[in-house]
Amino acid sequence: MATRSAKSLKLSPPRNAFYAQSGGVTAVINVSAQGVIETARKYPQKIGKVYAGRNGIIGALTEDLIDTSKEPLANIKGLGFTPSGAFGSCRYKLKSLDQNRREYERLIAVFKAHDIGYFFYNGGGDSADTCLKISQLSQSMGYPLTAVHVPKTVDNDLPITDCSPGFGSVAKYVAVSMLEAGLDVASMAKTSTKVFVLEVMGRHAGWITAACGLAQNNKFGHVAPQILLFPEIVFEPKKFLSEVDRVVKRDGFCAIGVSEGIRSIDGKFVAESGLIDAFGHAQLGGVAPVIADLVKRELKLKNHWAVADYLQRAARHISSKTDVEQSYALGKAAVEYAVKGMNGVMPAVRRLSSKPYRWDIVAAPLAEIANHEKKMPRDFITANGFHITQKCRNYLQPLIDGEAYPPYEGGLPAYVQLKNQAVKKKLPPFSL
Amino acid sequence: MATRSAKSLKLSPPRNAFYAQSGGVTAVINVSAQGVIETARKYPQKIGKVYAGRNGIIGALTEDLIDTSKEPLANIKGLGFTPSGAFGSCRYKLKSLDQNRREYERLIAVFKAHDIGYFFYNGGGDSADTCLKISQLSQSMGYPLTAVHVPKTVDNDLPITDCSPGFGSVAKYVAVSMLEAGLDVASMAKTSTKVFVLEVMGRHAGWITAACGLAQNNKFGHVAPQILLFPEIVFEPKKFLSEVDRVVKRDGFCAIGVSEGIRSIDGKFVAESGLIDAFGHAQLGGVAPVIADLVKRELKLKNHWAVADYLQRAARHISSKTDVEQSYALGKAAVEYAVKGMNGVMPAVRRLSSKPYRWDIVAAPLAEIANHEKKMPRDFITANGFHITQKCRNYLQPLIDGEAYPPYEGGLPAYVQLKNQAVKKKLPPFSL
Repeated sequence: MATRSAKSLKLSPPRNAFYAQSGGVTAVINVSAQGVIETARKYPQKIGKVYAGRNGIIGALTEDLIDTSKEPLANIKGLGFTPSGAFGSCRYKLKSLDQNRREYERLIAVFKAHDIGYFFYNGGGDSADTCLKISQLSQSMGYPLTAVHVPKTVDNDLPITDCSPGFGSVAKYVAVSMLEAGLDVASMAKTSTKVFVLEVMGRHAGWITAACGLAQNNKFGHVAPQILLFPEIVFEPKKFLSEVDRVVKRDGFCAIGVSEGIRSIDGKFVAESGLIDAFGHAQLGGVAPVIADLVKRELKLKNHWAVADYLQRAARHISSKTDVEQSYALGKAAVEYAVKGMNGVMPAVRRLSSKPYRWDIVAAPLAEIANHEKKMPRDFITANGFHITQKCRNYLQPLIDGEAYPPYEGGLPAYVQLKNQAVKKKLPPFSL
Repeated sequence: MATRSAKSLKLSPPRNAFYAQSGGVTAVINVSAQGVIETARKYPQKIGKVYAGRNGIIGALTEDLIDTSKEPLANIKGLGFTPSGAFGSCRYKLKSLDQNRREYERLIAVFKAHDIGYFFYNGGGDSADTCLKISQLSQSMGYPLTAVHVPKTVDNDLPITDCSPGFGSVAKYVAVSMLEAGLDVASMAKTSTKVFVLEVMGRHAGWITAACGLAQNNKFGHVAPQILLFPEIVFEPKKFLSEVDRVVKRDGFCAIGVSEGIRSIDGKFVAESGLIDAFGHAQLGGVAPVIADLVKRELKLKNHWAVADYLQRAARHISSKTDVEQSYALGKAAVEYAVKGMNGVMPAVRRLSSKPYRWDIVAAPLAEIANHEKKMPRDFITANGFHITQKCRNYLQPLIDGEAYPPYEGGLPAYVQLKNQAVKKKLPPFSL
């Protein structure tokens, strides 16, 4: 028996794995990377080395591979508490096989040259689509490859999975920030700022905006935010101003969470509604100043506004422990699926219970993930469109639960910077 | 002896204390309040009750006093980890005695009615001036009162004291945020954002901007931020753009920390330089979008920008432990000075050593504090004007050292909301 087993191992030697980060990075995408790398090392009969793509899929196309086996162990551990994309990420969507056969042929040439048999793609909806296409290469181009997608998106808009890694940490960041800024405004409102606007991410789905709403907490007497503006709800200036007016008269101040992606009745982004610079150029971006200006002009109320931008998605210092744990578990599950030969799938979080919060991981077919966007259900938003319902709170609360602080040195998080040693190239260059 | 001592106590019974928060609130001004209240309770022979002004000095003028002795102990403890002004703050500067005798007479009437013999004013430079005026009431209006100022300002612009409570926590917040956003941009720069701009507070002094610079750390290989724009340095667009261009060519990306208060050669705030809305109104505030737009227009580089606004000064979740300790110690020292009869002073932090960081507290005369603004020394800024020197780092680093996390419940900080029970009014109303 011992001989036969040794023989069968010889018959299918381990093959290398490719891992890449894709799209906007998060506070915890590196935690999934850690999960992938550490789990792969537990299957030496199946998986050889884990090569990471430098700057995502571009690293595969240009044969710019990183040998994670050469990274000091402390750095791999450090992925568990370091935000951003440690190997570099990119925004680069592969076209269909028909439209760009050249890129797929190149990918296969690189995979062949480095004996890559496993493909792990860590990204959102667009990336799931890329991963799906690559999972089909086995059939369409006769190259044996197991492709598994590792979910990631702060927008929380992936279908099937109960939530997406990265979202819980952004949610915690915006809820904490809104709570703190809300207390600030409340304590100054008598003689100073009456209206505060915080702009958050989520261009098409209001999940992050909704998370701001968690700051409002009756038990502690925290009233802010009183108004949320979701991309799912058409922005009506008159209705909005009347609500601000009502809240300021009632509470003495009003804190507002607004999605960068709210639109007017004409379908245009409010952020793009009319600001021009001194040279007459349209000024893009920043819905918060537009909203604040509207309040100032129409209600004559003193206001302040903040735009969290990258601060929210990079804020590893205040990550949710739930999010960190799920990010690791999903990276781990992706490898476990791959070694079982499950191709074209994505590990997804399944919620078993909200109170107490219990979850497990199930395999979701990529065809059902790719290019589907999960927006906020209407019953997660109050009837007037300006806040979240209890149902939404029950969904969101467990996702921000628990703290997972990074280690500090000299007052700052001791985030690691990987060495990212390159794998020697074997092929001629390739132009993107 | 026992009889004599009892007699002398009877001769000077304890008098009540008044405490008020003034100006912009911080993440740790309540920690000073806790220091004042808890220390006052240690001197029952000298100090009776501590009354807090609701919404700062306005509470004294309108006889809207809060009886802190009625606040549950858990809430007083909670001041140690709750940001904002728990009693309410205000922006209200008393005029000179000549200009507004009516307000001073009212203050004395309120103090007399509630037997207030101690006045603690927790604020910045303007407030120090108010406190100084009130400390002179003893002489000028024959009312016995001991007035002590408790320092507070995120701007760090108070003279004499080595640093100001509130600053260390903002400094830590902006350094951590810049570190995290810098890693984010670095990992995306290959195909996406090349320039990131973070706007921070500090309209006249560049201390907070300087603190962004702490994120740059050779030991960890953290290169962001590469450019800082201080209010102390005239903003020259051409020089700035050429530096951005150089940095992006060298590092692949550029992260910029900018003070809200930078000015052009003509002395105008850059934030006010030309943005107008669709109706032709000047759009105030927000230097970050102006800088980002300049970069986009002139260098054609994709950019993102963030405005931290209140998030930075309210961020108790990432407060510096040094700052928390000093805030408490200064509140405590203020009471100790007062019971010694030291009038018209402010406890100030004196730095004894930077490495290791050692400090103590000394009394500074208010006349030397009021209305003096401490800007960044030129040798804290590099020759080219775009970064901080090692000397500045040595000054700043201890101020962000240590973490002092609040307790959490359900994923959010368990910040307290005081009951703030009112003291019964004894006087006729007063109109401001």
